[in-house]
Parts: sequence; structure tokens; C-alpha cells
Amino acid sequence: MSISNKPVKGFLLDITGVLYNSDPNTIGRVIQGSVEAVNRLYAESSIRFVTNESTRSRKHLFEKLTKLGFTVKEEHIFMPCIKICVVKEFEDLDTNHPNCVLLGDAEAGFTYEAMNAAFRVLHETSDPLIVTLGCGKFYQRIDGPCMDVGGFTRALQYACDARIITIGKPDEQIFKAAVDDMGLTADEVVMIGDDIVSDVGGAQKAGIRGVQVRTGKWRQSWINHCIKPDLLADDLRSAVDMLLKKQ
Amino acid sequence: MSISNKPVKGFLLDITGVLYNSDPNTIGRVIQGSVEAVNRLYAESSIRFVTNESTRSRKHLFEKLTKLGFTVKEEHIFMPCIKICVVKEFEDLDTNHPNCVLLGDAEAGFTYEAMNAAFRVLHETSDPLIVTLGCGKFYQRIDGPCMDVGGFTRALQYACDARIITIGKPDEQIFKAAVDDMGLTADEVVMIGDDIVSDVGGAQKAGIRGVQVRTGKWRQSWINHCIKPDLLADDLRSAVDMLLKKQ
Repeated sequence: MSISNKPVKGFLLDITGVLYNSDPNTIGRVIQGSVEAVNRLYAESSIRFVTNESTRSRKHLFEKLTKLGFTVKEEHIFMPCIKICVVKEFEDLDTNHPNCVLLGDAEAGFTYEAMNAAFRVLHETSDPLIVTLGCGKFYQRIDGPCMDVGGFTRALQYACDARIITIGKPDEQIFKAAVDDMGLTADEVVMIGDDIVSDVGGAQKAGIRGVQVRTGKWRQSWINHCIKPDLLADDLRSAVDMLLKKQ
Repeated sequence: MSISNKPVKGFLLDITGVLYNSDPNTIGRVIQGSVEAVNRLYAESSIRFVTNESTRSRKHLFEKLTKLGFTVKEEHIFMPCIKICVVKEFEDLDTNHPNCVLLGDAEAGFTYEAMNAAFRVLHETSDPLIVTLGCGKFYQRIDGPCMDVGGFTRALQYACDARIITIGKPDEQIFKAAVDDMGLTADEVVMIGDDIVSDVGGAQKAGIRGVQVRTGKWRQSWINHCIKPDLLADDLRSAVDMLLKKQ
């Protein structure tokens, strides 16, 4: 598998499963070589981070990366948080009478009570709408794979016959925002991620080459997935080595 | 709306939302006239109960109905419990290495941890299978509508790309078992329920006339539902009055 010869002038990186593996009890564990790879990209190319994480603020995520040993700029992290995207898109919503549910990463917060409270809001509206921060099936934690927000979105959609709007990967907007921020065009950029649908498929739909790493949630069965990555690499370091060497 | 003139020789009744409304803190509240309607059906016709409830055993449900003032026979309650259906259908399953998840009513038991444990079983199998006791969207409790097992089934299906087998309404088997038990044929029977899909649609697919009551989870918007009941009645008593009067 080889990537097209168009020069790569910028890199978009997923965070969890590419930079580190998350853990429910600690801040997680760095994936070998990824700190050096990020440093190299900051020195030799352009780099932005594109994540659907929404359990905490961008500042919190930035501090976590710093603690893990990464040198990054907070403003280079693109995430589908309310402040950045949602308010802008839905600023005419009447918030006194909720008619829309915003779903993000909640992990243990996905209790029956919380789901049912969201269900009741949607159930009472004539045109129920779920705004979801990504549609991931699962993510990889050190203790094992964990259900992601996508499934809980489908649960509510089914129960209420709701419409879904996805903000964040694989929706194009978040990729485009990060590409624009680098002053590049989509075909000059690669996206490196561990999710075949949200990262690779989403990037490709936005005209960006998609690189699949074999870390994080990577599964061997994805070899047969209908989405075909432009490049398959062992890990971030290996992907960066291959892509910078070519130029 | 009028039901076909074929005589009605037997009645299948849904339980929650038809006989009583459930409540999270008490045993629930009888829907007016339903005790008398059940007595009348036992005296003048044939009657069976068809429910997807699975939080407790049949014995428990029987005792609950008795406490609420209903006079019923325990063996007339058909529910998709493991003992009745699943073991028979899946008796060749190797239970040492789980490769299938059985989903039933869990209400507050649908925690993130429980969902994730089920997800991990499915995630590890090459052909993940969910057996679900019904696919209800929601049910009506006295304190408001509540998400039913259907949504949680979809959540797991999405996260794992699993196949789903439904046991219980709207699957035909449970209706057929109850009809056979009365020694009748499908076209001699009506199903009375509050769920347009599980009760009315399910019955109709099995060749049974479906009666929708305006109690329990009934919603006015179902007037436009693609499933059209054979009869729409205010409540169980009204349905029984209309159907017994015709004969």
C-alpha cells in the first residue's frame, strides 16, 4: 500500500489511540515513539490535532498531553466542543424549552437515568433532533475496548425516531477547519488515526488522505473494511518516518 | 374504524399499559375497567396474556397481577423468558465461551458498565449475535415515558456490527404459541395492546387482528403511523365491550 505522490505539507493527528492509550484510572500511557514524532512534525511540517473527545475541556486535554510529555500548542487542538461549533450553528435555538439533545463522551455518565432524561426531552418534541459529537463505535482503553458515543446516539435515535446531526469526525467540517487553520488545501494534508470510519473515512470524504495506524483500536479484520486507507502504518512514528522520507 | 366480521373466539392481551400502568416505586395502578374486562373475557371467551416483560419471572408477574386485583392463571401468561424460548432455540450454544448477548428489560440495570461488559463479549466474536426480548422503543410509566430494551439493543448492534434476533413481540412465534395454546387459529383471535409496532404490527404479521388502545404509551401521532390497527379503542374495557357485542 503506498500513498499518492502529492507532497504532504501538513499532518492531522487523532489523539487517543495514536498519541497515547487511555486508561480509566490513570492519565494513560504514551504510545512508543509518538512524542518524538510530534516533535518532528512541529519541526519539519505543519501539524494539528483533530479529536472527538468531549469529556473535558480543550485546556484539560492540553494539560494532559503536556503531562504525558508532549509539546503541543493548545490552539492546535480541534475538538467538537460546544464553544467552537455548536453555539455558532444553533444560535437561534430557544434554550428555555429544550427540543434538542447534545451527546458527547460520557462513559460512566451514560446511566439509564441520564439516557432516559434525554429520551424524555426528545420524546416531547415533534421533530426530535440529536446533535452528537462523533459517531464512534468504540475506543480502546488500556483495560479493553469501550463503547463510544455512537451506540448511545443510536439508542436514543431508535427510541425517539430522532434526526441526528454529527459534529466532529467523520463530519467534514472539523477536518476542514483544521486544514484551513494551517493555510493548506485538503490534498496537501494527511490525517493519521486509529479509527477506520471516523479518521480514515471521514478524512477521505473531505479530500484528505487517510492513514490508518495499527495502534489504539486497530483491528486486523479492518483489512477487509470497505474503507481503504491510503497508507497503513504500524504506529505514528512509522507513519511520520515514511511520509517525511518521501519528500 | 371497524374490525372485520370474522367472529372473535380468543383474545390476546398485552399487560403493561393495557391492564395497568407501571410505576417505579409502587406495583403500579390498574387502568379503570380492566379487571372487569379480564373477568368478562375469562367468562365469555378465551384469553391469554402476551408480554415482553422480563425484569422478573412469570411467577412474580402473576403475583403482581393478583395483588392488583386481577384473576388470571399463571400459565396463561406468555413471555419471552429464557426458560420458555431461548434455551430450546439455542441449546447447542457453548456457554463456556460466550459469543452471544441476551438482552431483556433492565431499566436502571442498563449502566455503562453493564453495556460495556456485553459489548466486550460481542466485540471478541467473529459473528456477534444479540438475542433481544422485544424491540420496544419505550413504555409508559406513571412518572413518564421510559426507554425500552430496543434502544439498548441498537446501541450494542451499532457498536459491534452485531446481528439481532428478536424473541417476543413483534416476532410471530410468541403470538403463535399463545394462539395454539387456546386451540384456535390466528384469524379467530385479536391482540389488544398499547404498542403500535410490537402489539398491533406484530399481531397483524402473524395473521391476527390488532387492536390499539388509547392507554399506556398510546400517542395521538400514531394516527398517521404506517401500521393501521384493525380497531382503535379508548381502553381495554371499551375494546372488549365492542368486540363481544358484535358476536
